[in-house]
Amino acid sequence: MSAASRFVRLVLGEYAERPELLDERPWERRRDFLALNPAATLPVLIEDSGPPIVGGMVIAEYLDETRGVFQRDKRLQAETPAERAEVRRLVDWFLAKLENEVTRYLVRERVFKQEMRPEEGGGAPDASAIRAARANLKHHMRYVGWLAESRNWLSGDRLSYADFAAAGALSILDYLGEVAWDTEPLAKEWYMRVKSRPSFRPLLTERVRGIPPVAHYAELDF
Amino acid sequence: MSAASRFVRLVLGEYAERPELLDERPWERRRDFLALNPAATLPVLIEDSGPPIVGGMVIAEYLDETRGVFQRDKRLQAETPAERAEVRRLVDWFLAKLENEVTRYLVRERVFKQEMRPEEGGGAPDASAIRAARANLKHHMRYVGWLAESRNWLSGDRLSYADFAAAGALSILDYLGEVAWDTEPLAKEWYMRVKSRPSFRPLLTERVRGIPPVAHYAELDF
Repeated sequence: MSAASRFVRLVLGEYAERPELLDERPWERRRDFLALNPAATLPVLIEDSGPPIVGGMVIAEYLDETRGVFQRDKRLQAETPAERAEVRRLVDWFLAKLENEVTRYLVRERVFKQEMRPEEGGGAPDASAIRAARANLKHHMRYVGWLAESRNWLSGDRLSYADFAAAGALSILDYLGEVAWDTEPLAKEWYMRVKSRPSFRPLLTERVRGIPPVAHYAELDF
Repeated sequence: MSAASRFVRLVLGEYAERPELLDERPWERRRDFLALNPAATLPVLIEDSGPPIVGGMVIAEYLDETRGVFQRDKRLQAETPAERAEVRRLVDWFLAKLENEVTRYLVRERVFKQEMRPEEGGGAPDASAIRAARANLKHHMRYVGWLAESRNWLSGDRLSYADFAAAGALSILDYLGEVAWDTEPLAKEWYMRVKSRPSFRPLLTERVRGIPPVAHYAELDF
């Protein structure tokens, strides 16, 4: 249920890497986890050697420098500085703006609060936070629809980090049944293309305990 | 009063570029500005040709690819992927985490609300938001002190983007008299070193209308 973690898992999947996954509940503020990342945020990538790499886009830049540049036409970052800036703008849009206006609230209120103890912020969902996030999501879906209409993939002609940042975040909202796909058919068509990639399969088979996904969640043609 | 804009101005100053500056009040949501950046955030860099480059770190990455790589030992990004990840982690810390926990609130409540019309969110400052931001700032200053104690510059041996992201944000908080420098003498010593650079001079001479800076704001030895 972390959009940035899903983004990094999809990127690693595209580069045919099989990371070992460790479950972390950031709100528990585990001492050993704070030592890796004092901001107590996810994701954190730990390589066999070297310091921990912290944060969705920071990990993506690191993976581009250590893997992507050797991938030729499978590289998920663009080739020119201006195109790369557009990829980065969109990754930030989905991992920061969508996160701070929509995803964070829906996940906290509908998922994490059930797992948190009262002193960690657990308890009943806040209906007004959910309402505000849903209203914001409509604007975001219109923007995804506009991007899908004006471009082949979200950042331009080629599949890029932007598609996996967007699809990673939207897959969480879709799991929770929050995405009104029928109002944005071109966004839906784009999402089906990304969702059909083998890198997506592991995400589609995982379940949150006690919260079944929406019926079409794992269907590639929905 | 935009930390990310100050960061980019400092970087451009370090690379001896003299950008033309345009004043923008994002809360006015000017149509032409939204066409450049639908997120309506600052900064936006416009080159003589090419699309607008949007966002503090996105601009910094772009400047590294178009200027920094030719700067040899004056380059503000590190040379290895792991060191670059640390620079990016810290830039994000100061432009996103510090911003969202401290800077945004103090600037909005103490500065922007005076310039906003009521329908834009203007009005009297919210004392509880100011109080919460000040409490958060204490933790951030301890972290800056720890970084300054354990490293020569914030991200390591060399001056980097991390120093200018941190100093750009802290210069705003310092202008408003919010920084208790005496409790973190090593952070103060580091800030004096950054503040003494010629790239900092333009920022130190500018004033917000109706809000004079704290007495030591422009002093290099305070």
